[in-house]
Amino acid sequence: MKAYDGYLIDLDGTMYLGSKRIDAAPGFIHRLRQAGRKHLFVTNNSTRTQEQVAAKLRQMDIEADPEDVFTTSMATAAYIREQKPAARVYAIGEEGLFDALAKEELTVADENCDYVVIGLDTAITYEKLAKACLLVRAGATFLSTNSDKALPTEAGLMPGNGSLTAVVSVSTGVEPIYIGKPESIMMEQARKLLELGTEQVVMVGDNYLTDITAGIRAGMDTLMVCTGFTKREELPKLHPKPTYTIDSLDEWEIK
Amino acid sequence: MKAYDGYLIDLDGTMYLGSKRIDAAPGFIHRLRQAGRKHLFVTNNSTRTQEQVAAKLRQMDIEADPEDVFTTSMATAAYIREQKPAARVYAIGEEGLFDALAKEELTVADENCDYVVIGLDTAITYEKLAKACLLVRAGATFLSTNSDKALPTEAGLMPGNGSLTAVVSVSTGVEPIYIGKPESIMMEQARKLLELGTEQVVMVGDNYLTDITAGIRAGMDTLMVCTGFTKREELPKLHPKPTYTIDSLDEWEIK
Repeated sequence: MKAYDGYLIDLDGTMYLGSKRIDAAPGFIHRLRQAGRKHLFVTNNSTRTQEQVAAKLRQMDIEADPEDVFTTSMATAAYIREQKPAARVYAIGEEGLFDALAKEELTVADENCDYVVIGLDTAITYEKLAKACLLVRAGATFLSTNSDKALPTEAGLMPGNGSLTAVVSVSTGVEPIYIGKPESIMMEQARKLLELGTEQVVMVGDNYLTDITAGIRAGMDTLMVCTGFTKREELPKLHPKPTYTIDSLDEWEIK
Repeated sequence: MKAYDGYLIDLDGTMYLGSKRIDAAPGFIHRLRQAGRKHLFVTNNSTRTQEQVAAKLRQMDIEADPEDVFTTSMATAAYIREQKPAARVYAIGEEGLFDALAKEELTVADENCDYVVIGLDTAITYEKLAKACLLVRAGATFLSTNSDKALPTEAGLMPGNGSLTAVVSVSTGVEPIYIGKPESIMMEQARKLLELGTEQVVMVGDNYLTDITAGIRAGMDTLMVCTGFTKREELPKLHPKPTYTIDSLDEWEIK
């Protein structure tokens, strides 16, 4: 077990399950903080602001400040700013996306746009989708915060952002650049924010297909914790394997 | 040139271009009527009723009664009724779809549904799409009126029904049965309505990828008229070829 200077930590399945806290989560974060280790919570949820995510964690007695949270909306905004500061962006999404774009000083617009970004929007309309199609056809770079196809809720599996994004990709024939997990873009953005090298960081999550794959693609070590989506029994079939696999964050010693 | 008892006739590109009538159209329909030939206008437009489509044609001085019109919504409703009379159907669409379902005495519902049908709906919402996803996951048969990816309008190419349908197919992983052109289902439904055999019918249209392909797939003879989408220069590359290719409906002799 190596000593890591930075931890990227998934939320659902790792810190909590839906509205229920995972028992080992508060202690793990407390130990990280005591040891002075840098960390970021990295979430594919594009609809909430970093303040809202931190508040949810604190309600579960998990220590979290807004600046500890890195959403896929923030990663998208940071990615755009890096490529073109003060870009004009047409955005479909909720508060978390518009907040992130504003914090990166990007201009939200609906004509002459450099980028079209789609994040989950439960107030989606035909007009919003039509505008996105026209702008992508006119040459705007097409981004999507994340490719999640379905969103688990108490009422069942709802359409995820990857399925809304499909309206524009199917209509225009242009595939978007996806930012969130399992893509490496979000991992890279998070690592830069921590000001650490790839070797110094470990990605922690419960989902092999998103969290662990994102870490692997970014060239990071990975820690899979079997408290959520991926079961330990699946481990023999997974290639490449996570660097470490544990059953509870209580097992993990912070070096 | 064979004598046909029935003609299936496309609208956009064949009878008119957008809001502009094609000069040869009124005479062609008049000659068909004079010769006592059965015919149906077959359109992938799912949003209008047969009365609305006939009225648009008459405004262009093209003879048309409501019963001469066969929309993809009507084909969808007829297909469902054939498979399960009095089926319960969850429908996303506009007036043309709901009108067609009512005329086939199907029950529009939003729970315990046998079928989920998606037609173009410019008042689409997340809630409608979520309901469709839940019902498809619960086992309802998934139909889509047509797979058109983009809809030409004066403002540009808008999202077509195939792109809205993608939200549900991408989210659930279930591919729909498409009813409209280029599928043969709509052709078969139209042929049955005319009470004619496949050999007695010819499909007339301007678009090789939709109209002519639908006719070919249904085993019908096809007449391509180069007044719309497909250009005569493309003919050498098309396989299988239309049975006949002409530059204007004026050239076609009704036998």
